[in-house]
Amino acid sequence: MNVNGRHYRTIWLDEADPDRVRIINQQALPFSFEIMDLRTVEDARRAIRDMYVRGAGLIGATAAWGMYLALREAPAGSCDAALTQAAALLKATRPTASNLAWAVDRMLAAKPGAERETAQAISDEDAEFCRNIGLQGLGIIRKLAAGKGGSPVNILTHCNAGWLAFVDYGTALSPVYAAFDAGVPVHVWVDETRPRNQGASLTAWELGRHGVPHDLIPDNAGGHLMQHGLVDMVITGADRVTRSGDAANKIGTYLKALAARDNGVPFYVALPSSTFDWTMRDGVAEIPIEERDAAELRWVSGKTITGTIEAVQICPDDTPARNWGFDVTPAPYITGLITERGLCAAHEAAILALYPEHAGRSLSSDESASSISRS
Amino acid sequence: MNVNGRHYRTIWLDEADPDRVRIINQQALPFSFEIMDLRTVEDARRAIRDMYVRGAGLIGATAAWGMYLALREAPAGSCDAALTQAAALLKATRPTASNLAWAVDRMLAAKPGAERETAQAISDEDAEFCRNIGLQGLGIIRKLAAGKGGSPVNILTHCNAGWLAFVDYGTALSPVYAAFDAGVPVHVWVDETRPRNQGASLTAWELGRHGVPHDLIPDNAGGHLMQHGLVDMVITGADRVTRSGDAANKIGTYLKALAARDNGVPFYVALPSSTFDWTMRDGVAEIPIEERDAAELRWVSGKTITGTIEAVQICPDDTPARNWGFDVTPAPYITGLITERGLCAAHEAAILALYPEHAGRSLSSDESASSISRS
Repeated sequence: MNVNGRHYRTIWLDEADPDRVRIINQQALPFSFEIMDLRTVEDARRAIRDMYVRGAGLIGATAAWGMYLALREAPAGSCDAALTQAAALLKATRPTASNLAWAVDRMLAAKPGAERETAQAISDEDAEFCRNIGLQGLGIIRKLAAGKGGSPVNILTHCNAGWLAFVDYGTALSPVYAAFDAGVPVHVWVDETRPRNQGASLTAWELGRHGVPHDLIPDNAGGHLMQHGLVDMVITGADRVTRSGDAANKIGTYLKALAARDNGVPFYVALPSSTFDWTMRDGVAEIPIEERDAAELRWVSGKTITGTIEAVQICPDDTPARNWGFDVTPAPYITGLITERGLCAAHEAAILALYPEHAGRSLSSDESASSISRS
Repeated sequence: MNVNGRHYRTIWLDEADPDRVRIINQQALPFSFEIMDLRTVEDARRAIRDMYVRGAGLIGATAAWGMYLALREAPAGSCDAALTQAAALLKATRPTASNLAWAVDRMLAAKPGAERETAQAISDEDAEFCRNIGLQGLGIIRKLAAGKGGSPVNILTHCNAGWLAFVDYGTALSPVYAAFDAGVPVHVWVDETRPRNQGASLTAWELGRHGVPHDLIPDNAGGHLMQHGLVDMVITGADRVTRSGDAANKIGTYLKALAARDNGVPFYVALPSSTFDWTMRDGVAEIPIEERDAAELRWVSGKTITGTIEAVQICPDDTPARNWGFDVTPAPYITGLITERGLCAAHEAAILALYPEHAGRSLSSDESASSISRS
């Protein structure tokens, strides 16, 4: 996508210096647009863990480039050991994101010598899949627009699943950009997304730079808006989706799905195939939910009136806090999944009809079920 | 309740100087405990509008004392005009709060010369009603505790309906204090309550001062906690409850009610009778929802690492925002109402069984219905 008239991806290899991977520093947004260098796997690990990069697809791409950097650093003859160690290091950073393990495993499976092209392919596919998701979702928005008599389609989103969360385009926001670019009137309700405020700092920034009409709202407001007919659809991204369609996404997503169902508002989850976890069926029971530092909730960072960046504590000094990063929206509350291959119901049979290559894949629960039936 | 070992109410008349009403400045909490003076009706109006005081009962009591101050200011012979003007001024400050109009109307109906004792009675009744709500709610917590084998009853609350929101004791937190004081193990999940963070700054402060175990959580977390069995009950306050039991409360309450229903968690609304609006039945359609300044969302105030109080902007300079103060939880999602007269279902017949004196009161919707049937 464009920033100040120039095209950027969120991560890329420096063509002139193949020891340098470059990223947009998302910690600095929305108040400054900075490019950071990653030169080691440790740089990549820290970028993921401390959220200089975040978002399902971008975590995966950064992990892939981290594996590539690990190999560049490795002394001759110790490539396998370096990759194995880097894989463990990177996978431990963010337990919920499915794309992370997927990208690392794909890098481990790459032919020796093909690591650079594999990391590049992961990046390129991510962007291309997201572009396709935009085209798939555009059809849904067009249909809703047809019933609005020229007034904008109001789309609510939670967290940031825009181009900043992927290599380019994004998932939840890709259909919004496609609609806006096609002249379909849209307006986005942007959940601020506490505690890290990815909506306020990233989604609002993205939409503003692209010129898409939007309003920032507290995470608390979506239900009220839906009760009063002010939301035509919800689109969110996902960090991990089970083969049965349960979707882990930023904490609070589940509450919006409940409100959407209660008010007859369609609720879509947009994701590339790399976000599916084919080994799981029961999202609430099985998807690991990351618990992060309580300081993320107790302190809020932003720009003071004098223009400096400061953090302020919002609770008493002695107040304890808990900070889970994600929740799981059960499949029955999801109207549909928007994938790079098309739309489908959040239901195992429908998902496997789009992804038949995963139909036969064994599940640990299948295995235990069959061992029970044998005994 | 006690602060640093001394008993306070949130508002009181200075016995030594009857031109001075004193309040706890809730804008300064949790970082400093300050007492402010109200000497004029304009002081009272600003205290309500700018949220130096807030919360259903305390808004009512402050309005009552504001009427009293208006009378003290009025030149001899212009008492009626002063009261009429003050009533209009005060009622315009916060459109959703039911207690506000109730208290102002009760002051208007007071016998000339009885204004001070009426304002004092409103304060005293508010405290006494809240104390009773605590005893009523204690029974519910005791029953839940009986099934927990000694581990704490986990209670989720939204916003602040503690003693700071009333003259004393509070509504949602009054049963919590009663249980804690009776030795029943309790733990409170405190929603931070964006955008004004009343949970983080007031509820956490109250509970901390009283020694009640609690954890601050983002507003987004409640659904996840309920999915994993970590919430035994939800108790919130209310700003206005219709005769049929629809409850307007701080924005986001409705989302917690949906999650509670989806997970079989009991959801209670605690309120004194002054919060009922006997003229309304359909809360979503009829209760006016206050929209406040978007700056409350775009800027967050707190304490920097050096101890100064600062506000920081959390979104791009050009991001527009919307900020509705309340939402309405429809009666069917409410397990029960906890009132000073006892528990009842959120249902007109059950409510009127507790408050039979309001059974015959005419409704504008009744009137229009009967005029339709006549035509």
